[in-house]
Amino acid sequence: MKETIGFIGLGIMGGGMARNLLKAGFEVHVWNRTASRMAPIVDAGAQAAANAAAAASHADLIILCVSKTEDVEEVLFKENGVVQDAKPGSLIIDTSTISPQATISIEARLRKAGLRMLDAPISGGSEGAADGTLSIMVGGDETDVTRAMGALEAMASRITHVGGTGAGQMVKLVNQILVAGNMMAISEALIFAQKGGLDLRKTLEAVKHGAAGSWMLSNRGTQAIVRNFEPGFTIDLQQKDLRLVLETADALGIPLPMISQIFQLYRSLQEQGLGGEGNHALVMALENLAGIQINTIGE
Amino acid sequence: MKETIGFIGLGIMGGGMARNLLKAGFEVHVWNRTASRMAPIVDAGAQAAANAAAAASHADLIILCVSKTEDVEEVLFKENGVVQDAKPGSLIIDTSTISPQATISIEARLRKAGLRMLDAPISGGSEGAADGTLSIMVGGDETDVTRAMGALEAMASRITHVGGTGAGQMVKLVNQILVAGNMMAISEALIFAQKGGLDLRKTLEAVKHGAAGSWMLSNRGTQAIVRNFEPGFTIDLQQKDLRLVLETADALGIPLPMISQIFQLYRSLQEQGLGGEGNHALVMALENLAGIQINTIGE
Repeated sequence: MKETIGFIGLGIMGGGMARNLLKAGFEVHVWNRTASRMAPIVDAGAQAAANAAAAASHADLIILCVSKTEDVEEVLFKENGVVQDAKPGSLIIDTSTISPQATISIEARLRKAGLRMLDAPISGGSEGAADGTLSIMVGGDETDVTRAMGALEAMASRITHVGGTGAGQMVKLVNQILVAGNMMAISEALIFAQKGGLDLRKTLEAVKHGAAGSWMLSNRGTQAIVRNFEPGFTIDLQQKDLRLVLETADALGIPLPMISQIFQLYRSLQEQGLGGEGNHALVMALENLAGIQINTIGE
Repeated sequence: MKETIGFIGLGIMGGGMARNLLKAGFEVHVWNRTASRMAPIVDAGAQAAANAAAAASHADLIILCVSKTEDVEEVLFKENGVVQDAKPGSLIIDTSTISPQATISIEARLRKAGLRMLDAPISGGSEGAADGTLSIMVGGDETDVTRAMGALEAMASRITHVGGTGAGQMVKLVNQILVAGNMMAISEALIFAQKGGLDLRKTLEAVKHGAAGSWMLSNRGTQAIVRNFEPGFTIDLQQKDLRLVLETADALGIPLPMISQIFQLYRSLQEQGLGGEGNHALVMALENLAGIQINTIGE
């Protein structure tokens, strides 16, 4: 018999994930701050709850998919929050990307309240959420990971238990350092190629299968050279995550020269009103510095 | 009937390439500044020449595989250089990574002397040179590329004609921007993960198949976390190429903030006597900044 699930946060990611839980045969009670987002998921078979506490009240597993650290604290601990009505021993699975340090204190607070928690941030974009092919990086106790596995497998194709509480969030931040850094490399490469008079399409074709290759180059690089900056992941969300990286690095006492610089460049794009563009629009910050625009040549 | 080939420069790359030409049935006349390097290639069937001019004198195609711009100029134009004895209309294929601007003037000088030239820098490392699986990025005229194709195919599995004279060198520099930038992202990610107490092996496993993935992460990242800094490509050679990137960017009038920074970090490792380590030892520059060492945990 499958667990009953409370699902809180039906944004572009959460919506797809809740649908996949329904498809897999789970009973799902949903709640979203903007109520209109619940309707299509209810049509797909979910029960609408009046608030986070109500969504949690029938559930064995309570999945959170919200944006920021404050949002997680709010849906858990404020009035009509999860803690108010959750059954003793319920397991909270937080798929949001939030502060690793805050995650540790949130988990301790929940434990005192008789509840369990895993941090389980996701990557793989809206396509991954819709298709059930997300990657999930899980931090917490082995027994809780085992307990969550059925639900996690309904939403993701790659689930890695990376360590104790907070480790999932830390690995997600490692992921974001790599994504942003690879995009920075691509941005400098494209500006250099453009000013050097190269055909950008042929250039990517020549380098992407070798030692220079990356997921970002094959996917976002090829989008960038046709000036398609439609977001897989927006600059605003990328900045939220890089802010967590820099705050965490500061707390840990380590310098991150490259990520600091990238943060400043994304900041300049946000100030230009480009925060809703895809994170590969980082190349536009380099275009601004260089005073040129990239584009395909010879087509 | 296959062309006769003059091959100049039998270093770790050139040696493997010359062997593959012999295997494919070409007659190959070789010359190397350090004469002892010729012996094993002669054993494999090549003819030893007394100097570059002599290696070129019987050849239709003359392949150069040396280190620096000055080396290319020397073997072509100085006493006993290629130009002295090459047959009119011979095609020079320069597989060295050298300055794109210098390539344009060298090609013009050769054309005046009645010779043809392609810039054809390679990537894929010593394994690729040995296995014949290099990538070659070719700049020059279509007719010359067609003429060179038999020889190129004996040495490489991916040959991309990317544009006119110098374009091959420019694309190679684009490749190096991406390689160095991706390694910088990996270095910051590993330092962050280490100080955050993560298991580095599990961390790479969790992120390398998704949007954070790259050739450098899968290959050099996994080497770095076990502190194996054996070179696929040395820091000294990487620096030579990044110097070309920065000189070319300066000539073109474009800022490259990330690559400038990486150049300085590699410089600090060279001053520590680490220029012979692999380019993934960039992580050691971050270790110096952060005052910690990465290593695997929990094994």
